[in-house]
Amino acid sequence: MAQHAANTGDSRRERGRRAFAEIGREAGDDFLAELVDIAPDLPNYILEFPYGDIYSRPGLDRRSREIAIIAALSAMGNAKPELVVHLEAGLNVGLSQDEIVEILIQMAVYAGFPAAVNGLHTAKEVFARRSGDVRKQAK
Amino acid sequence: MAQHAANTGDSRRERGRRAFAEIGREAGDDFLAELVDIAPDLPNYILEFPYGDIYSRPGLDRRSREIAIIAALSAMGNAKPELVVHLEAGLNVGLSQDEIVEILIQMAVYAGFPAAVNGLHTAKEVFARRSGDVRKQAK
Amino acid sequence: MAQHAANTGDSRRERGRRAFAEIGREAGDDFLAELVDIAPDLPNYILEFPYGDIYSRPGLDRRSREIAIIAALSAMGNAKPELVVHLEAGLNVGLSQDEIVEILIQMAVYAGFPAAVNGLHTAKEVFARRSGDVRKQAK
Amino acid sequence: MAQHAANTGDSRRERGRRAFAEIGREAGDDFLAELVDIAPDLPNYILEFPYGDIYSRPGLDRRSREIAIIAALSAMGNAKPELVVHLEAGLNVGLSQDEIVEILIQMAVYAGFPAAVNGLHTAKEVFARRSGDVRKQAK
Amino acid sequence: MAQHAANTGDSRRERGRRAFAEIGREAGDDFLAELVDIAPDLPNYILEFPYGDIYSRPGLDRRSREIAIIAALSAMGNAKPELVVHLEAGLNVGLSQDEIVEILIQMAVYAGFPAAVNGLHTAKEVFARRSGDVRKQAK
Amino acid sequence: MAQHAANTGDSRRERGRRAFAEIGREAGDDFLAELVDIAPDLPNYILEFPYGDIYSRPGLDRRSREIAIIAALSAMGNAKPELVVHLEAGLNVGLSQDEIVEILIQMAVYAGFPAAVNGLHTAKEVFARRSGDVRKQAK
Repeated sequence: MAQHAANTGDSRRERGRRAFAEIGREAGDDFLAELVDIAPDLPNYILEFPYGDIYSRPGLDRRSREIAIIAALSAMGNAKPELVVHLEAGLNVGLSQDEIVEILIQMAVYAGFPAAVNGLHTAKEVFARRSGDVRKQAK
Repeated sequence: MAQHAANTGDSRRERGRRAFAEIGREAGDDFLAELVDIAPDLPNYILEFPYGDIYSRPGLDRRSREIAIIAALSAMGNAKPELVVHLEAGLNVGLSQDEIVEILIQMAVYAGFPAAVNGLHTAKEVFARRSGDVRKQAK
Repeated sequence: MAQHAANTGDSRRERGRRAFAEIGREAGDDFLAELVDIAPDLPNYILEFPYGDIYSRPGLDRRSREIAIIAALSAMGNAKPELVVHLEAGLNVGLSQDEIVEILIQMAVYAGFPAAVNGLHTAKEVFARRSGDVRKQAK
Repeated sequence: MAQHAANTGDSRRERGRRAFAEIGREAGDDFLAELVDIAPDLPNYILEFPYGDIYSRPGLDRRSREIAIIAALSAMGNAKPELVVHLEAGLNVGLSQDEIVEILIQMAVYAGFPAAVNGLHTAKEVFARRSGDVRKQAK
Repeated sequence: MAQHAANTGDSRRERGRRAFAEIGREAGDDFLAELVDIAPDLPNYILEFPYGDIYSRPGLDRRSREIAIIAALSAMGNAKPELVVHLEAGLNVGLSQDEIVEILIQMAVYAGFPAAVNGLHTAKEVFARRSGDVRKQAK
Repeated sequence: MAQHAANTGDSRRERGRRAFAEIGREAGDDFLAELVDIAPDLPNYILEFPYGDIYSRPGLDRRSREIAIIAALSAMGNAKPELVVHLEAGLNVGLSQDEIVEILIQMAVYAGFPAAVNGLHTAKEVFARRSGDVRKQAK
């Protein structure tokens, strides 16, 4: 069914790094850097498997992948740092702020209103930081 | 930001019924019918709020909503009947089987391999039933 | 604040057994019996701690405790056998079927519609078995 | 079975606002206000559906609803802001501090000791704030 | 800190296949085979990443890894097929049935009694199947 | 199967206190002390049941129990204060920092990368505090 991306030598890590650079920028780099001293292999695994193997698969565009990731992270509700990274990522791959808000509101139906509301509070922080508008920024 | 859909009289339920009919077909109807004798108001609530108010909002297309819903339901992992309805719904609003498989594989990263694998087993059942190919159908 | 119940000798297990007998009847006995050969101490622990120590505390009536337990089990969504026991228990300590249905519908708001719907399907099975009305019994 | 409350015009929002005002007071108002700029329709939805449609249903008294909500939110463990609102709400509709403590202790059995302990820490903050006794207030 | 295992060519998949063969035997093979037609790359990913990269890391023995996996799967409570595989795996890498029972009982404290009880029911099925003693096998 | 530890008089609490003292030290004592004014019986229950009855059972060594507990708490992801206590406990009963890191990395497979990453951030804080090396300490 879906095709397997090429898998020679260090290509997984390079492919992952390219995907990660496109989506993550500053939030993503800090995220990996904080893991280096506690689990030095984990940043490599994160580039290789989630980004090099999975996220880079050709069968689904990045915008759709970010919709799925934002939905899952807000529904599970226990991964705020990752939700921050993927709210940034969603905006970077072409989702509008309004579309992200719609995804989070939709979660009220399946994961309950608290999951939606908490996701929206996190989105509010991310959107405020991006616009540089500190007046909107949640405390 | 996002706009509120019209909200006069019984329009919420009608709007929800139209959305539900488009996405749900047989699986969805059975789903509502089974609730009538235990909680007779709940099928109405389901048409009015999740479908009439939320799912019908204009700010996000149905294909994107189904990506979000399939991702959330498989990540949470405790709602197989609803996942079946939305795997059907995803196909009905234009997701391909391959795209759905990609969404579910992506969940391995955020919710763990068991969430992805269980979601794929459910997708296998749904796809087999749609194709009428009983040889592929999971036991 | 709340008072500690007496705790001498085997009184915990006896107190738990009395509480368990009142609420559990047949469903509860089978529940404990199935654990005897795999984890022979666990039925005793269940009588002593959850029922002897906690459930028997004087600060909250049984009806209120069962409301809390039914809500929690349906919200978490991964404990159907225990939910069956406590739907029976709720009816045995004075909750009406309608009140139980209200508790489960209320969960749609906090844990999402799937949690509520799955809880209602389980309640439908329990109510049908109690009434002996096999026509209503979920498949 | 349970009856459907009246549903004409803007009555849902008004009914929800009345329920919300009774239970929520200051904590609840802030809660809604923080959502206005990120998702301006969501405060209305929250008044209309969770409070206007569900919470206001006649089949279960408010005290019992708050027992169910406090139990579910502490058992799920990922919705502290909502738990704060409903600990306040529980006190406002007639639960005593001791009864709330009993509900949270009961959760140790079904959702594990961490769920109970975390819920109790949140209750400690809420009770201290209400009594104005800053010496007791958790950091 | 912990060391990264060698990562040349197809060595990840081979290393994973060796680990998987040691732990999984029949239950594991069926588990992968059922995924081939729905997500043909996923069995490879499972051998490469969870088993080739992670499970084969030198810093923690297999017995300890299986303790961690059995604990996590029973605590999360929504992954019975994977729990079956790892109950088998635990026995295959040297955990006794009694030790597995202890791990599952310990979960009552952290994830609640239902998580422990459901895990024990699954263990009962696995132990009965291994002993060929159908009299003990849960229905 | 597994044997029940002696259960006379106040022996449960004493046995629990000994186990708790060995594993918990400062983090554990503060943990119990914070519960005294909100739920004065709960610290006793925690010593008696989780530590006196369960943790002290002879069928599984403390190192193995802490592996199971650290795995479960990081997989569930909503109990950071308890994870801190058991990261300390794991080190106190003989797990190395590297072994704990391996347990947490292993969770990426079963509970998703966010669960592993969040657990590692918490471990980083605990390890830094123990070494007194404030330069490594997470913000």
